[in-house]
Amino acid sequence: MSWIKAVGIGPGSSELMTNKAIEAIAECDVVIGYTSYIEMIKTLVKDKQIVSTGMRKEVERCEIALEKAQEGKKVCVVSSGDPGIYGMAGLLLELSIKNRIELPIEVVPGVSAVNAAASLLGAPLMHDFSVISLSDHLTPWEVIEKRIELAAQGDFVIAIYNPKSRERTEHFDRAVEIMLQHKRPDTPVGVVKNADREGETVLVTSLSRVIEEDIDMTTIVIVGNRNTVSERGHMITPRGYKL
Amino acid sequence: MSWIKAVGIGPGSSELMTNKAIEAIAECDVVIGYTSYIEMIKTLVKDKQIVSTGMRKEVERCEIALEKAQEGKKVCVVSSGDPGIYGMAGLLLELSIKNRIELPIEVVPGVSAVNAAASLLGAPLMHDFSVISLSDHLTPWEVIEKRIELAAQGDFVIAIYNPKSRERTEHFDRAVEIMLQHKRPDTPVGVVKNADREGETVLVTSLSRVIEEDIDMTTIVIVGNRNTVSERGHMITPRGYKL
Repeated sequence: MSWIKAVGIGPGSSELMTNKAIEAIAECDVVIGYTSYIEMIKTLVKDKQIVSTGMRKEVERCEIALEKAQEGKKVCVVSSGDPGIYGMAGLLLELSIKNRIELPIEVVPGVSAVNAAASLLGAPLMHDFSVISLSDHLTPWEVIEKRIELAAQGDFVIAIYNPKSRERTEHFDRAVEIMLQHKRPDTPVGVVKNADREGETVLVTSLSRVIEEDIDMTTIVIVGNRNTVSERGHMITPRGYKL
Repeated sequence: MSWIKAVGIGPGSSELMTNKAIEAIAECDVVIGYTSYIEMIKTLVKDKQIVSTGMRKEVERCEIALEKAQEGKKVCVVSSGDPGIYGMAGLLLELSIKNRIELPIEVVPGVSAVNAAASLLGAPLMHDFSVISLSDHLTPWEVIEKRIELAAQGDFVIAIYNPKSRERTEHFDRAVEIMLQHKRPDTPVGVVKNADREGETVLVTSLSRVIEEDIDMTTIVIVGNRNTVSERGHMITPRGYKL
């Protein structure tokens, strides 16, 4: 029986993969993914057919996955982190419905980048939080801007994916400007680059200073709420226990 | 050398635990956790000293962890899901700072309940989302209500933890009422009970009908954004690719 699984391989190291993800890859015939994610799991995929494609080829990857499965193959489409968070799970399901393909599609969740980044910072996500991507590749900037505004107004902890890319550097500064209208300048901000990967860096700064940091598309930025503290290099958002 | 690790054991099954969590438990002397979480990992903790306590004993559990580590023990404090999301990581760090205890404290992230629930529903979290707990045990209800309002206004996908407890049943209905002021009545809503545990149930309904469902504190509710669709029993929030 053929199937497709959208498999989350975790943020980077094999240590943070789940057993379910490892098993799914072990049982499949074909592994499809973005080139650098295939690289992350190269020891697991030695005897598999591998289809790796570059960035922004997501639709193509899913179409190949559906084709291969229709040919009778067991297919894993791998995403770093969790395939359900800015990953490949949605696109796979959308395409299977659009093309009326009736095949079992399972989503194998993973430790997402934001969970990994938070763990390295201490405990910034202990209270209500919003996750926002600043990439305007698929979403109008006005929508993103409005979400930043409302999340800041609601005193959410805000986790930012894709803060900057090579072509797009000004959005992050604008996002910080908006957050500064609702959050204190000394609000702790965590900046994690390459979480759980080679070149990992972790630092805690403040909302008024974060634009000085070296931020790129491998970075997750986590902005605290009004109670978040920064101590001993850790960022901690209290849950509210009386101590 | 003694240490403390706040370890995420994932949503329920050992399949969704990470290798890092399994290793941390294997290497420690003492495992501390809420009784039912210890039960979830009973095969892993056979030769360990176990300290299990009931609900709302979080501060006590962390104090015991710090004591044991000060006695020279290696200690794992386990949380279901991810210890950094409404888990024990923050409290541990807070108490260690308050009591000026200098011990290595590491957070081992896990697949959180919301990731697991989303994977069972399909792909509801493919776009910007907010995570909100309706428990007013540690947070004033006015703050929670305001956050629901703003997240709904921003067209976030909204994931709700602790929608109801035995003593507190009216908050969820009020939250739905608020969301209905900003989201369409036919907005898809996923209701997942006991994700990845015994008694798991998964269903997709709509915002106007969700209050009819049997919802309790083991339930995660995920409310879609304006583009979320419900098809073939799946809930899918498009990322925005043109298909």
